[in-house]
Amino acid sequence: MFRSLTYTVARRSLSGLPSAGRAASGALYLTGRRYSSTMKALVYRGKEQYGVEERPKPQVSAPTDAVIKLSKTTICGTDLHILHGDVPTVVPGRILGHEGLGTVESVGPGVHAFQPGDRVIISCITACATCSFCRRGMPSHCASGGWILGNTIDGTQAEFVRIPFADSSLHQVPRGVDEDALVMVSDILPTALECGTLNGRVQPGTSVAVIGAGPVGLSALLTAQLYSPAKVIMIDLDRNRLEVASKLGATHTVESGPDVVKTVMDITEGRGVDTAIEAVGVPATFELCQDIIGAGGTIANAGVHGVKADLHLEKLWDRNISITTRLVDAVTQPMIIQLLKSGKLDAKPLATHTFSFNNVDQAYSSFAAAAQHKALKVIINFDN
Amino acid sequence: MFRSLTYTVARRSLSGLPSAGRAASGALYLTGRRYSSTMKALVYRGKEQYGVEERPKPQVSAPTDAVIKLSKTTICGTDLHILHGDVPTVVPGRILGHEGLGTVESVGPGVHAFQPGDRVIISCITACATCSFCRRGMPSHCASGGWILGNTIDGTQAEFVRIPFADSSLHQVPRGVDEDALVMVSDILPTALECGTLNGRVQPGTSVAVIGAGPVGLSALLTAQLYSPAKVIMIDLDRNRLEVASKLGATHTVESGPDVVKTVMDITEGRGVDTAIEAVGVPATFELCQDIIGAGGTIANAGVHGVKADLHLEKLWDRNISITTRLVDAVTQPMIIQLLKSGKLDAKPLATHTFSFNNVDQAYSSFAAAAQHKALKVIINFDN
Amino acid sequence: MFRSLTYTVARRSLSGLPSAGRAASGALYLTGRRYSSTMKALVYRGKEQYGVEERPKPQVSAPTDAVIKLSKTTICGTDLHILHGDVPTVVPGRILGHEGLGTVESVGPGVHAFQPGDRVIISCITACATCSFCRRGMPSHCASGGWILGNTIDGTQAEFVRIPFADSSLHQVPRGVDEDALVMVSDILPTALECGTLNGRVQPGTSVAVIGAGPVGLSALLTAQLYSPAKVIMIDLDRNRLEVASKLGATHTVESGPDVVKTVMDITEGRGVDTAIEAVGVPATFELCQDIIGAGGTIANAGVHGVKADLHLEKLWDRNISITTRLVDAVTQPMIIQLLKSGKLDAKPLATHTFSFNNVDQAYSSFAAAAQHKALKVIINFDN
Amino acid sequence: MFRSLTYTVARRSLSGLPSAGRAASGALYLTGRRYSSTMKALVYRGKEQYGVEERPKPQVSAPTDAVIKLSKTTICGTDLHILHGDVPTVVPGRILGHEGLGTVESVGPGVHAFQPGDRVIISCITACATCSFCRRGMPSHCASGGWILGNTIDGTQAEFVRIPFADSSLHQVPRGVDEDALVMVSDILPTALECGTLNGRVQPGTSVAVIGAGPVGLSALLTAQLYSPAKVIMIDLDRNRLEVASKLGATHTVESGPDVVKTVMDITEGRGVDTAIEAVGVPATFELCQDIIGAGGTIANAGVHGVKADLHLEKLWDRNISITTRLVDAVTQPMIIQLLKSGKLDAKPLATHTFSFNNVDQAYSSFAAAAQHKALKVIINFDN
Repeated sequence: MFRSLTYTVARRSLSGLPSAGRAASGALYLTGRRYSSTMKALVYRGKEQYGVEERPKPQVSAPTDAVIKLSKTTICGTDLHILHGDVPTVVPGRILGHEGLGTVESVGPGVHAFQPGDRVIISCITACATCSFCRRGMPSHCASGGWILGNTIDGTQAEFVRIPFADSSLHQVPRGVDEDALVMVSDILPTALECGTLNGRVQPGTSVAVIGAGPVGLSALLTAQLYSPAKVIMIDLDRNRLEVASKLGATHTVESGPDVVKTVMDITEGRGVDTAIEAVGVPATFELCQDIIGAGGTIANAGVHGVKADLHLEKLWDRNISITTRLVDAVTQPMIIQLLKSGKLDAKPLATHTFSFNNVDQAYSSFAAAAQHKALKVIINFDN
Repeated sequence: MFRSLTYTVARRSLSGLPSAGRAASGALYLTGRRYSSTMKALVYRGKEQYGVEERPKPQVSAPTDAVIKLSKTTICGTDLHILHGDVPTVVPGRILGHEGLGTVESVGPGVHAFQPGDRVIISCITACATCSFCRRGMPSHCASGGWILGNTIDGTQAEFVRIPFADSSLHQVPRGVDEDALVMVSDILPTALECGTLNGRVQPGTSVAVIGAGPVGLSALLTAQLYSPAKVIMIDLDRNRLEVASKLGATHTVESGPDVVKTVMDITEGRGVDTAIEAVGVPATFELCQDIIGAGGTIANAGVHGVKADLHLEKLWDRNISITTRLVDAVTQPMIIQLLKSGKLDAKPLATHTFSFNNVDQAYSSFAAAAQHKALKVIINFDN
Repeated sequence: MFRSLTYTVARRSLSGLPSAGRAASGALYLTGRRYSSTMKALVYRGKEQYGVEERPKPQVSAPTDAVIKLSKTTICGTDLHILHGDVPTVVPGRILGHEGLGTVESVGPGVHAFQPGDRVIISCITACATCSFCRRGMPSHCASGGWILGNTIDGTQAEFVRIPFADSSLHQVPRGVDEDALVMVSDILPTALECGTLNGRVQPGTSVAVIGAGPVGLSALLTAQLYSPAKVIMIDLDRNRLEVASKLGATHTVESGPDVVKTVMDITEGRGVDTAIEAVGVPATFELCQDIIGAGGTIANAGVHGVKADLHLEKLWDRNISITTRLVDAVTQPMIIQLLKSGKLDAKPLATHTFSFNNVDQAYSSFAAAAQHKALKVIINFDN
Repeated sequence: MFRSLTYTVARRSLSGLPSAGRAASGALYLTGRRYSSTMKALVYRGKEQYGVEERPKPQVSAPTDAVIKLSKTTICGTDLHILHGDVPTVVPGRILGHEGLGTVESVGPGVHAFQPGDRVIISCITACATCSFCRRGMPSHCASGGWILGNTIDGTQAEFVRIPFADSSLHQVPRGVDEDALVMVSDILPTALECGTLNGRVQPGTSVAVIGAGPVGLSALLTAQLYSPAKVIMIDLDRNRLEVASKLGATHTVESGPDVVKTVMDITEGRGVDTAIEAVGVPATFELCQDIIGAGGTIANAGVHGVKADLHLEKLWDRNISITTRLVDAVTQPMIIQLLKSGKLDAKPLATHTFSFNNVDQAYSSFAAAAQHKALKVIINFDN
C-alpha cells in the first residue's frame, strides 16, 4: 500500500520552488528532510491496549494524496471510545488520531492547492469533494472519505500521516494565529458549531442550554455566542467545569440534580429553552433535553450515543420541535479560521494541557481523567 | 358566557351596508335571519357517548369575535380520539368540531376584516395574532388561542359557532372553488403541508415516503407533489388506500409487511429516503421511519402519538438527520387557497362521502370505519 | 374623529384592577390622570415650518386603539425630510413623530394585550396583524397600517398619541433596561437590523462595509456585530463619526475619498466585501456599494432615496450578488428587546443628547446640524 | 500545452477493465478507438468569423483532466455574443462551445469518479471543488475554473474536448433518458433554475412573470413549475414563442407593448408579481421588471447585460424587494438529472432542431435567426 509510484509531474508552480524537489517516485517532497524511512506512531492494539511503535513512514499512494509531517496533534473523546473497544471499524494495528497541524512533506500530482512546505491544518473529515454527499455539503458521509483518519486508515498521532483528497481535506495555517488554538479547527470547533450551534439554530436574543460542559459542550458555548443568544445555560455535574463555563461566557450554570428542569424553567420564565444542545451522549441527558425544550425549539444532538433513548412523542408531537443529529461535516472550517484570525473567536482556553509526543501516554492519562486534571483538550507537540 | 354584551359600534364601513344591521347588543348581524335562539349541535357526553342536542346559539362575547352559520363541516381523526376519551381537555358538554365553512352571522366591533354575509372558511387554529407565538408564526401555541375549537370551547359541528379573534382565524371563500374542497383548508391540507411536506423539506428531485395512506397521509402525498419530488412512496396496510394513492400521484406503493424496509431501500438504490412522513401515530411506524431514512434526511411527524417511541440514537447520531414535530399552525391557509383557486392543487378527491347534518351519526360511523367504507373525509352539509 | 364612543366592556381582567376605571365612553382609562382635554404637540405647518400647538387630546376611536401618554420621544431623519417638504403624504396640521415610549392611558375594548398603566414602547410601524402583508411578516406594507404615525395620522411628538391596532403595535417595557436605549427600539434599531444586518445576511467570519456612519449606519454597525463578522468597515466623510464607529466596534474606518474602493479592496484582500450596507440614500453611495461588493455578496439598502441610481448590470450580471430594499417591518422588536435586556446589545451610546419637550425646537436644531453637535439620536423627555 | 505526459497509474479498479487500456502516456484510454491524432472543431477566428478546422486532438494534460469524445453539443446565446466580438476573453483560434454529451476517452490519474467508456454530460462550469468559491457552492467563480470552456480554453463544438477537474465537472448519463434532453443539463436548465427560479424564490401559490420567451425564459417557465406557482405570466414580442409558452404551462401570455404593466397588474389584482425573471438582457426589460414587481417580491436577473440600467430606488427603496444576479453555478445539475429521470421535468420540447456537425454552419444560422425558424435549442450530432 505504501510502495512508491512513479509520477512525472508538470506543474508550472514548481519550477521556481527552491525548497521543493522531486523524489525518484515523482512525488513532490520537502528538500532537506531526514531520509529516515520509519517514524513513531501511537498504535491501537486491541481493547484497552495501545503503545508507541516504529512504523514505516506513509507515502503518497494516490495522485490526490499529501503526506503531512505533524507538529501538533490532540486526543478526542472518540479515541477513548476506540481504546474501550467501542468502535468496531478500528482494527488492531491502526494508528490513532484525526486532529492535528503540520507541514506538507509531499503531494501527489493531482494536488493543486498545496505544496511541500505549506503549513496546514488537517480536517478530521476527509472529503473527495465530488460524490453526491460532498456536493450536498455533507462530506461526513463522503463515498470515499468521511471520518476515516485513525479509523479505517492510519491517523495523526504519529510523526507523519497520509491525507487522501488533500485539496479538500487540508487548510492553510493563517498567519498570526496561535497554533494550539488552530488544532481545535480539526474537529472540536466545527463539531460544536455544526452539530450544536448551527443545527440548534441559535439566534440573537434566544435561550440556549448546553448539557455537558466537557470540551464539546464548552466549544458549543463558545460558538453559540457567535450568534448572540440572550441566555446560555450550562448544565453539568462537575462544578469546576461550570466555573470554566462561566468564564467562557455562560450566563447561567446549573449543577445536574433533581431540580434541573425546574431551574431551567425558572430561568426561561416557564417557556423552556429555544435550543438544547446535548453534549454527553447518554439517554438520560438526551431525555433531559426533551424536558427543557420550549415549544418551537430545537434539540441538537452533539453526543455520541451507544444505546437508544426514549422519545416522548406523546408529549412532543404537538410541540413543534426539531431534533437533529450530525456527524461533523467540517464545512465550517474556513469560517472558523476567519473567526480565529479576526479574534472574534478565542479557542485558546480549550487547550489546557501540553505534552510532548514522547509523553503521549501521559497525555492520554490526563485526558482520560479529565475532571480530575481539569483538562479540556491536551496539545501533543512533536519535537521537530 | 354567552350572555349578550352591549356595544355601540362606529365603523365607517357600515353606513352603506343594507344587508347588515345592529342588534340591541351592538354587534353586527345579518338581517333576515330566523331569530331562533337555539340551534342543533353535536355534543360530547363522555367516553364513547355523543349526540345531537338543542343548544343556545352562540353570540359575540368579545369584541374580536365573529359568529358563523355553518354550511359544511367535517370530522377529523382527533374527533374520534375525543370520543374514545383520549383528550382530557375536552369535557362532557362540549360541542365537537374544528373544521368548516359558512357565512358570517355577526361580528364584534373589533373585527375589521369580515362583516356579516361574508362567506368564510374556519381555521382549526384560533390565532390572536399578537402573542409571542403568533408573532413567531406559530399560532398553534397562541397564548389565547391555538386548537381550542371543539376542545376547550364549543366547535363547528353545530349550526352556529363563535370564532374568537375572527380577523386572524377566518378566510374569505374564494370564488369559483368547490366548497367541499375548501372544507379541507380548515385543517387537513395545512396539517399535511406544514407537518409533512414543509417540515419534511420536500424538494424537487428528492424521494419521499409517507407512512399511512389515510386522509393525512394522502394529503401529504398531494401537497408533497407541489415541490416535484422524483419519488413518492406510499406505505399502508390497506390495499384500497394504496390504489387511491396511486391515482393521486404516488410513484410507488408498498404494502406494510416484513419486507417494507428492503423494498424502500431497493426503490431508493440503497440510500433510504430524503423525507419520511409519519402519518399514523404509533411507535412502530415512527420506528419504521428511522429504518428507511437516508443520511441527511428528515423524519416529519404528522401523527398524533399517545405513547413514547424508541429513538435509535446509536444508529442515528452520526446520520445527519432531523426529526420534526408540529401541531398545525395553519399559516399556509392563504397559500393553499391560492393553489386551490389556480387548480394547482386538487383537494376534491379527499371528500369521498357526503351526509346531511341530520345524519351526522351515520357520518361518524362511516368515518370511524373508514377502511370498510373506503372513506377519506366526509362532508357534512347543513340544510340552510 | 376624536369624539368619544360608547362601549360597554366585559373583560374579566378588569374586575380586579384598582388602578383602572371606565370612562363614560366605555374605554378603559388610567384613574388619577388630569382631565385636561388638550395637549401640547409639535405640528407640521408646511415646508420648513413647524411649531408646538395646543391640540385636543386623542381618544380611543376604534375598538383596537390605545392612547399612550408619552414619556420620551425622538427625532428621525425622516422627520427632517418631512420638514423639507419631501414627503407628500404628510399634510400641514399633522403632528410629527413615530418613535417613543410612554404609559397606556386608555384602550378600546378590542385590545387584549395591554391595559391602562402599562409602560410601553411604540413601534414606528402600525400592524393590523391580519392582512396578507402582515401574515407574510411584512407589516411595513400593512393594508391598514404600515408607517402611518406622524405621516397619515398624528404622531408621537406630543403629550399623547392614539395607536391603532395597539395589540400588535406596542411592546411592554422590560424591567431594568435604560429607557433612553428603549426609545431606539421604536425605529432605528429594527431599521438597522432588518434593512441592514438581516437583509445583508451578515454571518460569522464575513466582511461588512457600512456606507454612512450616521445613526442608521452606526446602528447597523451595532446590530451587525450580533452575528460576529470578522471585519466591519465604516465609511464616512466625518472623522468624528468614524471615531465613534471605532469605539462601537468597527474593525476598520475609511474616510470617503478617491481611494475608498482601493482601500476596501486592500482590507478584503482583493475580494470585496460580503455585505455592503447603504445608509446614506444618494446615488453616489449606492454606486460605491457596487464597486466594493464581492462576488456572491449582498448590497442591503437602508437609505431613503429620492432619485434613481445607475445599476451597473454590465459588471454585476455574472457576479452572483443580491440587492435588497426594505421599509422596516419592525418584526424584530421582540428580539431586540431580549438583546437589550440581556446586555448583548448596548444602544445607550446612540442617545447622545437630551432635551425637554419644552425645548423641542432646540432638539430639532441639534439633530438637523448633527455633525456640528456630534449628535446621533436626541432624546426628548416629557415633563410628567 | 497538449503534449503528452507520462503517468504511471495504479488504480485497483483498473485491473478488471477489459475495455480500457493504458497509453504510452500513462493516461487511461478507450481501447479500439481510431488513433487519428487530429479532429474537426469549430473555431472562432475573430469578429463574425468562424469555421470548421482540423485541429490536434486534446489530451490529458493535468492529472485531474478527462478527454471526452462528443456525441452531441448545442449552441448557446453566448456563442453568438462571442461571434459578434462581445466577449473579449475569447481570442481568435479558440474552439467554441460549453455544452454537450459524450463518452470518456481518457482520464488522468487524479480522476476517480469516471473512467474511459463512461457516458457523461459536460457541465458548462468547470469546478475545482476546493477553492473558497467552490466550497461556498459558487463554482461560477472558481479560482481555477468557472466558465472557461469555449472561452479561455477550447470547448465542446469539436469531436473531442479536454475537461479539467473532471470529477466535479462531469455527470454520468442516467439510463433511459432522452439524450437530446440531457444536453439541456449542461447549461440552459441549471441557468434557468438557478438564476431564475431559485434566485427568484418561486414558491407554491405565488405569481411569476418571465420577461423573454427565448430558450432561457422558456426554461425558466419549465423549472418555475417545479414549485407550483399559481400564475406564470410569459411576456415577449414574438407571438409564436408565446404560443410555445402556453403549451409549456404558462397560465398567461402577454405581448410586449404599452399596456404590459397594466395587464400584469390586472392579472395580479393590482399587487404586482412575487417573482420577475429577466431573460432578455437589455435595460428596457430590466426596468419593466421594476414596474411589475410586487412589494416583497424578487427580480431575478437571468439575462446577459452589456450596459447599465436605471434602478428606480426612489420608488423601490421602501418596497422590500430583492434583485439578484448570477452566473450559473451548475450546482443543481444532479437535481435536474433526477427530475429528468423521473419524468417530473420534460426538457425535450426545448430541442427543436437537429443537425449533423457536418452542417454546424447551418445550425448556427438557424439559431441566429431563431424567431424565423421557430428555433429554441438546436442539437448538433457527431457522426461517431
